[in-house]
Amino acid sequence: MKILITAGGTKEKIDQVRSITNHSSGRLGKAIAEAFIAQGPVQIDYVTTKFVAKPKLSDHLRFHIIESTSDLFHTLEQLLQEQTYDAIIHSMAVSDFTPAFSLSETQFSERLTKDPLTSANLHDWLTTSEQLTDNQDKISSDTDYLFVALKKTPKIIGFLRKWQPKAKIVGFKLLVDVPKKHLLSVAKKSLATNQTDFVFANDLTQISENKHHGYLISATGSIEEAHTKQEIAQRIVANILN
Amino acid sequence: MKILITAGGTKEKIDQVRSITNHSSGRLGKAIAEAFIAQGPVQIDYVTTKFVAKPKLSDHLRFHIIESTSDLFHTLEQLLQEQTYDAIIHSMAVSDFTPAFSLSETQFSERLTKDPLTSANLHDWLTTSEQLTDNQDKISSDTDYLFVALKKTPKIIGFLRKWQPKAKIVGFKLLVDVPKKHLLSVAKKSLATNQTDFVFANDLTQISENKHHGYLISATGSIEEAHTKQEIAQRIVANILN
Repeated sequence: MKILITAGGTKEKIDQVRSITNHSSGRLGKAIAEAFIAQGPVQIDYVTTKFVAKPKLSDHLRFHIIESTSDLFHTLEQLLQEQTYDAIIHSMAVSDFTPAFSLSETQFSERLTKDPLTSANLHDWLTTSEQLTDNQDKISSDTDYLFVALKKTPKIIGFLRKWQPKAKIVGFKLLVDVPKKHLLSVAKKSLATNQTDFVFANDLTQISENKHHGYLISATGSIEEAHTKQEIAQRIVANILN
Repeated sequence: MKILITAGGTKEKIDQVRSITNHSSGRLGKAIAEAFIAQGPVQIDYVTTKFVAKPKLSDHLRFHIIESTSDLFHTLEQLLQEQTYDAIIHSMAVSDFTPAFSLSETQFSERLTKDPLTSANLHDWLTTSEQLTDNQDKISSDTDYLFVALKKTPKIIGFLRKWQPKAKIVGFKLLVDVPKKHLLSVAKKSLATNQTDFVFANDLTQISENKHHGYLISATGSIEEAHTKQEIAQRIVANILN
Protein backbone atom coordinates (compact mmCIF):
# COMPACT_ATOMS: atom_id res chain seq x y z
CA MET A 1 0.00 0.00 0.00
CA LYS A 2 1.27 3.46 -0.92
CA ILE A 3 0.28 6.46 1.20
CA LEU A 4 1.05 10.16 1.12
CA ILE A 5 0.75 12.12 4.38
CA THR A 6 1.22 15.86 4.85
CA ALA A 7 1.79 17.13 8.41
CA GLY A 8 3.16 20.14 10.29
CA GLY A 9 2.50 23.79 9.38
CA THR A 10 3.68 26.02 6.56
CA LYS A 11 5.72 29.20 6.95
CA GLU A 12 5.47 32.22 4.61
CA LYS A 13 8.34 34.70 4.57
CA ILE A 14 7.54 38.38 5.22
CA ASP A 15 11.19 39.31 4.80
CA GLN A 16 14.52 37.63 5.40
CA VAL A 17 14.10 37.44 9.17
CA ARG A 18 10.33 37.22 9.71
CA SER A 19 7.66 34.74 8.67
CA ILE A 20 4.00 34.01 9.15
CA THR A 21 3.58 30.48 10.45
CA ASN A 22 0.59 28.23 10.90
CA HIS A 23 0.67 26.49 14.26
CA SER A 24 0.94 22.73 14.25
CA SER A 25 2.70 20.33 16.57
CA GLY A 26 2.99 17.68 13.84
CA ARG A 27 1.81 15.07 16.36
CA LEU A 28 -1.37 14.11 14.50
CA GLY A 29 0.52 13.32 11.28
CA LYS A 30 3.03 11.33 13.33
CA ALA A 31 0.21 9.29 14.93
CA ILE A 32 -1.34 8.62 11.51
CA ALA A 33 1.98 7.48 9.98
CA GLU A 34 2.68 5.23 12.96
CA ALA A 35 -0.83 3.73 12.81
CA PHE A 36 -0.35 2.88 9.11
CA ILE A 37 3.05 1.31 9.78
CA ALA A 38 1.63 -0.74 12.67
CA GLN A 39 -1.09 -2.33 10.54
CA GLY A 40 1.11 -3.97 7.90
CA PRO A 41 3.22 -3.39 4.78
CA VAL A 42 3.09 0.24 3.68
CA GLN A 43 5.24 2.80 1.89
CA ILE A 44 4.67 6.39 3.03
CA ASP A 45 5.75 9.64 1.42
CA TYR A 46 5.70 11.98 4.43
CA VAL A 47 5.66 15.67 3.52
CA THR A 48 6.32 17.88 6.53
CA THR A 49 8.00 20.99 7.92
CA LYS A 50 11.05 21.59 10.15
CA PHE A 51 10.73 21.82 13.94
CA VAL A 52 7.59 19.69 14.36
CA ALA A 53 7.14 16.19 15.80
CA LYS A 54 7.88 13.49 13.21
CA PRO A 55 7.39 9.71 13.08
CA LYS A 56 10.50 7.62 13.86
CA LEU A 57 12.81 7.04 10.91
CA SER A 58 11.84 3.78 9.24
CA ASP A 59 12.19 1.94 5.92
CA HIS A 60 8.48 2.58 5.45
CA LEU A 61 8.91 6.34 5.39
CA ARG A 62 10.41 8.79 2.96
CA PHE A 63 10.56 12.36 4.32
CA HIS A 64 10.08 15.49 2.19
CA ILE A 65 10.76 18.67 4.18
CA ILE A 66 9.10 21.81 2.85
CA GLU A 67 8.63 25.35 4.19
CA SER A 68 6.05 27.43 2.32
CA THR A 69 2.69 26.80 0.71
CA SER A 70 4.39 27.23 -2.65
CA ASP A 71 6.99 24.54 -1.75
CA LEU A 72 4.15 22.25 -0.71
CA PHE A 73 2.34 22.82 -3.97
CA HIS A 74 5.39 21.97 -6.08
CA THR A 75 6.32 18.91 -3.99
CA LEU A 76 2.79 17.49 -4.15
CA GLU A 77 2.41 18.33 -7.83
CA GLN A 78 5.52 16.32 -8.59
CA LEU A 79 4.84 13.33 -6.31
CA LEU A 80 1.17 13.05 -7.23
CA GLN A 81 1.74 13.35 -10.96
CA GLU A 82 4.61 10.84 -11.01
CA GLN A 83 3.25 8.16 -8.71
CA THR A 84 -0.01 6.48 -7.80
CA TYR A 85 -1.12 6.44 -4.19
CA ASP A 86 -3.81 4.38 -2.47
CA ALA A 87 -4.51 7.21 -0.06
CA ILE A 88 -3.61 10.83 0.73
CA ILE A 89 -3.95 12.20 4.27
CA HIS A 90 -3.61 15.97 4.05
CA SER A 91 -3.27 16.99 7.70
CA MET A 92 -0.78 19.85 7.22
CA ALA A 93 -1.86 23.30 8.45
CA VAL A 94 -1.45 25.23 5.20
CA SER A 95 -1.31 29.01 5.16
CA ASP A 96 -4.31 30.60 3.44
CA PHE A 97 -2.28 33.76 2.88
CA THR A 98 1.19 34.76 1.84
CA PRO A 99 2.73 38.25 2.15
CA ALA A 100 2.17 40.36 -0.97
CA PHE A 101 3.85 43.59 0.14
CA SER A 102 4.57 45.62 3.24
CA LEU A 103 4.73 49.33 3.90
CA SER A 104 6.15 51.40 6.73
CA GLU A 105 4.08 54.41 7.81
CA THR A 106 6.28 56.65 5.67
CA GLN A 107 5.93 54.42 2.63
CA PHE A 108 2.19 54.11 3.20
CA SER A 109 1.86 57.86 3.47
CA GLU A 110 3.84 58.39 0.24
CA ARG A 111 1.62 55.89 -1.57
CA LEU A 112 -1.48 57.76 -0.33
CA THR A 113 -0.13 61.08 -1.56
CA LYS A 114 0.59 59.72 -5.04
CA ASP A 115 -2.41 57.44 -5.23
CA PRO A 116 -5.35 58.25 -2.91
CA LEU A 117 -7.20 55.29 -1.44
CA THR A 118 -10.98 55.03 -1.31
CA SER A 119 -13.37 52.16 -0.76
CA ALA A 120 -14.06 52.24 -4.52
CA ASN A 121 -10.46 51.76 -5.69
CA LEU A 122 -9.22 49.55 -2.82
CA HIS A 123 -8.63 46.43 -4.91
CA ASP A 124 -6.76 48.32 -7.66
CA TRP A 125 -4.76 50.21 -5.08
CA LEU A 126 -3.66 46.93 -3.54
CA THR A 127 -2.74 45.35 -6.86
CA THR A 128 -0.72 48.43 -7.83
CA SER A 129 1.01 48.52 -4.44
CA GLU A 130 1.99 44.90 -4.84
CA GLN A 131 3.54 45.64 -8.24
CA LEU A 132 5.39 48.70 -6.90
CA THR A 133 6.89 47.18 -3.78
CA ASP A 134 10.12 45.25 -3.60
CA ASN A 135 10.12 43.19 -0.43
CA GLN A 136 13.49 41.51 -0.65
CA ASP A 137 15.09 43.41 2.21
CA LYS A 138 14.65 43.19 5.94
CA ILE A 139 11.87 45.59 6.88
CA SER A 140 13.11 48.68 8.67
CA SER A 141 11.99 48.79 12.29
CA ASP A 142 12.02 52.58 12.19
CA THR A 143 8.23 52.95 12.02
CA ASP A 144 5.47 52.84 14.66
CA TYR A 145 3.12 50.81 12.50
CA LEU A 146 4.03 48.38 9.77
CA PHE A 147 1.42 47.37 7.27
CA VAL A 148 1.62 43.87 5.79
CA ALA A 149 -0.75 42.99 2.97
CA LEU A 150 -1.27 39.28 2.50
CA LYS A 151 -2.84 37.63 -0.50
CA LYS A 152 -4.65 34.34 -0.81
CA THR A 153 -2.66 31.23 -1.65
CA PRO A 154 -4.08 28.60 -4.03
CA LYS A 155 -6.13 25.98 -2.12
CA ILE A 156 -3.91 22.91 -2.43
CA ILE A 157 -6.62 20.53 -1.20
CA GLY A 158 -8.54 21.40 -4.37
CA PHE A 159 -5.77 19.97 -6.62
CA LEU A 160 -5.43 16.57 -4.98
CA ARG A 161 -8.37 14.89 -6.76
CA LYS A 162 -7.21 16.24 -10.11
CA TRP A 163 -3.75 14.73 -9.59
CA GLN A 164 -4.98 11.44 -8.10
CA PRO A 165 -8.39 10.52 -9.49
CA LYS A 166 -8.55 7.18 -7.66
CA ALA A 167 -6.82 7.68 -4.29
CA LYS A 168 -8.83 7.81 -1.08
CA ILE A 169 -8.31 11.37 0.11
CA VAL A 170 -8.71 12.66 3.68
CA GLY A 171 -8.91 16.42 4.18
CA PHE A 172 -9.01 18.37 7.45
CA LYS A 173 -11.15 21.31 8.51
CA LEU A 174 -10.15 23.30 11.57
CA LEU A 175 -12.47 26.00 12.91
CA VAL A 176 -12.32 27.96 16.16
CA ASP A 177 -15.04 27.89 18.80
CA VAL A 178 -18.10 27.20 16.62
CA PRO A 179 -21.23 25.11 17.30
CA LYS A 180 -21.03 21.43 16.26
CA LYS A 181 -23.73 21.96 13.62
CA HIS A 182 -21.74 24.75 11.93
CA LEU A 183 -18.50 22.74 12.07
CA LEU A 184 -20.11 19.71 10.42
CA SER A 185 -21.81 21.82 7.79
CA VAL A 186 -18.58 23.63 6.79
CA ALA A 187 -16.70 20.31 6.75
CA LYS A 188 -19.32 18.65 4.52
CA LYS A 189 -19.14 21.58 2.12
CA SER A 190 -15.34 21.18 1.95
CA LEU A 191 -15.78 17.44 1.28
CA ALA A 192 -18.01 18.21 -1.71
CA THR A 193 -15.98 21.15 -3.07
CA ASN A 194 -12.67 19.31 -2.91
CA GLN A 195 -14.03 15.89 -3.90
CA THR A 196 -12.35 14.14 -0.99
CA ASP A 197 -13.59 10.83 0.46
CA PHE A 198 -13.28 11.97 4.06
CA VAL A 199 -12.84 15.14 6.02
CA PHE A 200 -11.82 15.34 9.64
CA ALA A 201 -13.68 18.25 11.25
CA ASN A 202 -12.20 19.71 14.42
CA ASP A 203 -12.39 22.79 16.59
CA LEU A 204 -9.27 24.37 18.09
CA THR A 205 -10.98 24.76 21.48
CA GLN A 206 -11.32 20.95 21.58
CA ILE A 207 -7.60 20.30 21.13
CA SER A 208 -5.13 20.18 24.00
CA GLU A 209 -1.99 18.27 25.01
CA ASN A 210 -3.84 14.98 25.59
CA LYS A 211 -7.16 15.53 23.87
CA HIS A 212 -8.06 15.96 20.23
CA HIS A 213 -11.77 15.86 19.63
CA GLY A 214 -13.46 15.84 16.23
CA TYR A 215 -15.49 14.02 13.61
CA LEU A 216 -14.37 11.90 10.67
CA ILE A 217 -17.02 12.48 8.03
CA SER A 218 -17.21 10.33 4.90
CA ALA A 219 -18.56 11.30 1.48
CA THR A 220 -21.10 8.50 1.91
CA GLY A 221 -22.53 10.24 4.97
CA SER A 222 -21.06 8.37 7.95
CA ILE A 223 -19.75 10.34 10.93
CA GLU A 224 -17.32 8.85 13.47
CA GLU A 225 -16.33 10.75 16.60
CA ALA A 226 -12.77 10.65 17.98
CA HIS A 227 -11.26 12.03 21.19
CA THR A 228 -7.48 11.63 20.88
CA LYS A 229 -4.88 11.79 18.10
CA GLN A 230 -4.41 8.01 18.41
CA GLU A 231 -8.14 7.44 17.97
CA ILE A 232 -8.24 9.79 14.96
CA ALA A 233 -5.28 7.92 13.42
CA GLN A 234 -6.92 4.52 14.01
CA ARG A 235 -10.23 5.62 12.51
CA ILE A 236 -8.50 7.03 9.43
CA VAL A 237 -6.43 3.86 8.92
CA ALA A 238 -9.47 1.60 9.41
CA ASN A 239 -11.50 3.58 6.88
CA ILE A 240 -8.70 3.63 4.31
CA LEU A 241 -8.13 -0.14 4.65
CA ASN A 242 -11.85 -0.84 4.33
CA MET B 1 29.15 32.95 38.36
CA LYS B 2 25.55 33.71 37.44
CA ILE B 3 24.60 34.21 33.80
CA LEU B 4 21.38 34.94 31.94
CA ILE B 5 21.17 33.91 28.28
CA THR B 6 18.28 34.55 25.89
CA ALA B 7 18.14 32.47 22.69
CA GLY B 8 15.71 31.37 19.97
CA GLY B 9 13.12 33.60 18.31
CA THR B 10 9.86 35.14 19.49
CA LYS B 11 6.43 34.47 18.00
CA GLU B 12 3.60 37.03 17.89
CA LYS B 13 0.06 35.74 17.42
CA ILE B 14 -1.98 37.18 14.53
CA ASP B 15 -4.95 35.03 15.47
CA GLN B 16 -5.49 31.66 17.10
CA VAL B 17 -3.87 29.68 14.29
CA ARG B 18 -1.31 32.09 12.77
CA SER B 19 1.76 33.86 14.12
CA ILE B 20 4.61 36.04 12.99
CA THR B 21 7.89 34.42 13.96
CA ASN B 22 11.47 35.63 13.97
CA HIS B 23 13.79 33.04 12.50
CA SER B 24 16.39 31.58 14.79
CA SER B 25 17.87 28.10 15.02
CA GLY B 26 18.78 28.60 18.71
CA ARG B 27 22.22 27.13 17.96
CA LEU B 28 24.22 30.24 18.88
CA GLY B 29 22.63 30.46 22.35
CA LYS B 30 23.29 26.73 22.79
CA ALA B 31 26.97 27.20 21.88
CA ILE B 32 27.29 30.11 24.32
CA ALA B 33 25.69 28.17 27.21
CA GLU B 34 27.90 25.15 26.53
CA ALA B 35 31.02 27.33 26.38
CA PHE B 36 30.18 28.85 29.78
CA ILE B 37 29.54 25.41 31.29
CA ALA B 38 32.83 24.08 29.87
CA GLN B 39 34.93 26.80 31.52
CA GLY B 40 34.00 26.16 35.17
CA PRO B 41 31.30 26.64 37.83
CA VAL B 42 28.35 28.59 36.48
CA GLN B 43 24.60 28.91 37.02
CA ILE B 44 22.65 29.88 33.89
CA ASP B 45 19.08 31.11 33.54
CA TYR B 46 18.36 30.17 29.92
CA VAL B 47 15.35 31.98 28.43
CA THR B 48 14.31 30.48 25.11
CA THR B 49 11.45 29.46 22.80
CA LYS B 50 9.92 26.12 21.78
CA PHE B 51 11.17 24.21 18.73
CA VAL B 52 14.74 25.57 18.63
CA ALA B 53 18.04 23.88 19.45
CA LYS B 54 18.78 23.94 23.20
CA PRO B 55 21.83 23.10 25.34
CA LYS B 56 21.78 19.66 26.99
CA LEU B 57 19.90 19.49 30.28
CA SER B 58 22.33 20.07 33.12
CA ASP B 59 22.41 21.13 36.78
CA HIS B 60 23.99 24.36 35.55
CA LEU B 61 20.94 25.34 33.53
CA ARG B 62 17.47 26.48 34.40
CA PHE B 63 15.16 26.79 31.35
CA HIS B 64 12.46 29.43 30.96
CA ILE B 65 10.34 28.84 27.84
CA ILE B 66 8.58 31.90 26.47
CA GLU B 67 6.67 32.65 23.25
CA SER B 68 6.05 36.35 22.59
CA THR B 69 8.00 39.55 23.07
CA SER B 70 5.58 40.40 25.87
CA ASP B 71 6.32 37.06 27.62
CA LEU B 72 10.03 37.78 27.25
CA PHE B 73 9.63 41.22 28.77
CA HIS B 74 7.77 39.90 31.82
CA THR B 75 10.15 36.97 32.35
CA LEU B 76 13.24 39.19 32.15
CA GLU B 77 11.66 41.91 34.30
CA GLN B 78 11.06 39.37 37.04
CA LEU B 79 14.41 37.54 36.85
CA LEU B 80 16.49 40.69 36.53
CA GLN B 81 14.73 42.55 39.31
CA GLU B 82 14.87 39.61 41.74
CA GLN B 83 18.40 38.37 41.15
CA THR B 84 21.86 39.68 40.40
CA TYR B 85 23.73 38.38 37.37
CA ASP B 86 27.38 38.66 36.42
CA ALA B 87 26.48 38.74 32.75
CA ILE B 88 23.54 38.83 30.35
CA ILE B 89 23.86 37.48 26.80
CA HIS B 90 20.80 38.62 24.87
CA SER B 91 21.02 36.58 21.66
CA MET B 92 17.28 35.97 21.15
CA ALA B 93 15.76 37.22 17.87
CA VAL B 94 13.05 39.45 19.31
CA SER B 95 10.16 40.64 17.17
CA ASP B 96 10.20 44.40 16.55
CA PHE B 97 6.48 44.28 15.76
CA THR B 98 3.35 42.67 17.09
CA PRO B 99 -0.03 42.50 15.31
CA ALA B 100 -2.27 45.45 16.20
CA PHE B 101 -5.28 44.62 14.02
CA SER B 102 -6.21 42.93 10.78
CA LEU B 103 -8.82 43.65 8.15
CA SER B 104 -10.29 41.66 5.30
CA GLU B 105 -10.91 43.56 2.05
CA THR B 106 -14.57 43.97 3.02
CA GLN B 107 -13.69 45.27 6.48
CA PHE B 108 -11.05 47.59 5.00
CA SER B 109 -13.53 48.93 2.48
CA GLU B 110 -16.13 49.55 5.21
CA ARG B 111 -13.55 51.41 7.30
CA LEU B 112 -12.68 53.59 4.27
CA THR B 113 -16.34 54.43 3.67
CA LYS B 114 -16.88 55.49 7.28
CA ASP B 115 -13.48 57.05 7.80
CA PRO B 116 -11.58 58.11 4.62
CA LEU B 117 -7.83 57.60 4.68
CA THR B 118 -5.35 60.24 3.52
CA SER B 119 -1.65 60.70 4.02
CA ALA B 120 -2.48 63.43 6.57
CA ASN B 121 -4.65 61.30 8.86
CA LEU B 122 -2.83 57.96 8.43
CA HIS B 123 -1.54 57.69 12.00
CA ASP B 124 -4.93 58.58 13.53
CA TRP B 125 -6.67 56.21 11.15
CA LEU B 126 -4.39 53.37 12.26
CA THR B 127 -4.87 54.15 15.96
CA THR B 128 -8.66 54.29 15.54
CA SER B 129 -8.69 51.05 13.55
CA GLU B 130 -6.74 49.35 16.31
CA GLN B 131 -9.31 50.49 18.89
CA LEU B 132 -12.22 49.37 16.72
CA THR B 133 -11.01 45.91 15.79
CA ASP B 134 -11.46 42.79 17.84
CA ASN B 135 -8.93 40.21 16.71
CA GLN B 136 -9.77 37.33 18.97
CA ASP B 137 -11.15 35.06 16.26
CA LYS B 138 -9.50 33.12 13.48
CA ILE B 139 -9.31 35.41 10.47
CA SER B 140 -11.75 34.48 7.73
CA SER B 141 -9.98 33.23 4.61
CA ASP B 142 -12.84 34.53 2.49
CA THR B 143 -10.93 37.56 1.16
CA ASP B 144 -8.36 38.02 -1.63
CA TYR B 145 -6.18 40.33 0.40
CA LEU B 146 -5.79 40.46 4.15
CA PHE B 147 -4.13 43.41 5.87
CA VAL B 148 -2.25 42.98 9.05
CA ALA B 149 -1.19 46.17 10.79
CA LEU B 150 1.71 45.61 13.15
CA LYS B 151 2.87 47.99 15.84
CA LYS B 152 6.27 48.40 17.40
CA THR B 153 7.11 46.38 20.50
CA PRO B 154 9.12 47.92 23.36
CA LYS B 155 12.89 47.46 22.80
CA ILE B 156 13.75 44.96 25.54
CA ILE B 157 17.51 45.44 25.15
CA GLY B 158 16.97 49.00 26.39
CA PHE B 159 15.67 47.79 29.79
CA LEU B 160 18.53 45.45 30.66
CA ARG B 161 20.93 48.09 32.02
CA LYS B 162 18.16 49.65 34.11
CA TRP B 163 17.40 46.28 35.72
CA GLN B 164 21.04 45.21 36.12
CA PRO B 165 23.29 48.24 36.60
CA LYS B 166 26.45 46.14 37.14
CA ALA B 167 26.13 43.08 34.89
CA LYS B 168 28.27 42.72 31.77
CA ILE B 169 25.72 42.84 28.97
CA VAL B 170 26.14 41.50 25.43
CA GLY B 171 23.64 42.63 22.80
CA PHE B 172 23.30 41.44 19.20
CA LYS B 173 22.73 43.40 16.00
CA LEU B 174 21.65 41.54 12.87
CA LEU B 175 21.47 43.38 9.56
CA VAL B 176 20.96 42.03 6.04
CA ASP B 177 23.48 42.49 3.23
CA VAL B 178 25.11 45.78 4.27
CA PRO B 179 28.71 46.99 3.96
CA LYS B 180 30.97 46.21 6.95
CA LYS B 181 31.34 49.92 7.74
CA HIS B 182 27.56 50.38 8.02
CA LEU B 183 27.17 47.23 10.13
CA LEU B 184 29.84 48.36 12.61
CA SER B 185 28.43 51.86 12.79
CA VAL B 186 24.87 50.67 13.52
CA ALA B 187 26.18 48.18 16.09
CA LYS B 188 28.24 50.86 17.88
CA LYS B 189 25.20 53.11 18.01
CA SER B 190 23.20 50.28 19.60
CA LEU B 191 26.01 49.73 22.14
CA ALA B 192 25.80 53.37 23.21
CA THR B 193 21.99 53.66 23.15
CA ASN B 194 21.43 50.51 25.18
CA GLN B 195 24.45 50.93 27.48
CA THR B 196 25.69 47.40 26.88
CA ASP B 197 29.33 46.35 27.32
CA PHE B 198 29.47 44.42 24.08
CA VAL B 199 27.50 44.02 20.90
CA PHE B 200 27.89 41.22 18.41
CA ALA B 201 27.38 42.64 14.91
CA ASN B 202 26.45 40.19 12.18
CA ASP B 203 24.97 40.10 8.70
CA LEU B 204 22.44 37.45 7.67
CA THR B 205 24.25 36.87 4.36
CA GLN B 206 27.32 35.77 6.40
CA ILE B 207 25.45 33.07 8.32
CA SER B 208 25.00 29.52 7.05
CA GLU B 209 24.86 25.97 8.43
CA ASN B 210 28.58 25.88 9.30
CA LYS B 211 29.58 29.52 9.20
CA HIS B 212 28.63 32.47 11.37
CA HIS B 213 30.70 35.52 10.67
CA GLY B 214 30.62 38.74 12.68
CA TYR B 215 32.33 41.17 15.04
CA LEU B 216 32.30 41.34 18.82
CA ILE B 217 32.58 45.03 19.60
CA SER B 218 33.27 46.27 23.13
CA ALA B 219 32.25 49.59 24.69
CA THR B 220 35.96 50.27 25.17
CA GLY B 221 36.52 50.12 21.42
CA SER B 222 37.99 46.67 20.76
CA ILE B 223 36.73 44.63 17.80
CA GLU B 224 37.19 40.85 17.56
CA GLU B 225 36.21 38.93 14.44
CA ALA B 226 34.63 35.46 14.62
CA HIS B 227 33.75 32.94 11.92
CA THR B 228 31.70 30.19 13.59
CA LYS B 229 29.16 29.95 16.41
CA GLN B 230 31.77 28.15 18.53
CA GLU B 231 34.25 30.97 17.99
CA ILE B 232 31.61 33.59 18.84
CA ALA B 233 30.75 31.66 22.02
CA GLN B 234 34.42 31.39 23.04
CA ARG B 235 35.08 35.09 22.46
CA ILE B 236 32.04 36.08 24.49
CA VAL B 237 32.98 33.78 27.38
CA ALA B 238 36.61 34.97 27.36
CA ASN B 239 35.54 38.62 27.43
CA ILE B 240 33.02 38.07 30.23
CA LEU B 241 35.59 36.18 32.35
CA ASN B 242 38.21 38.87 31.82
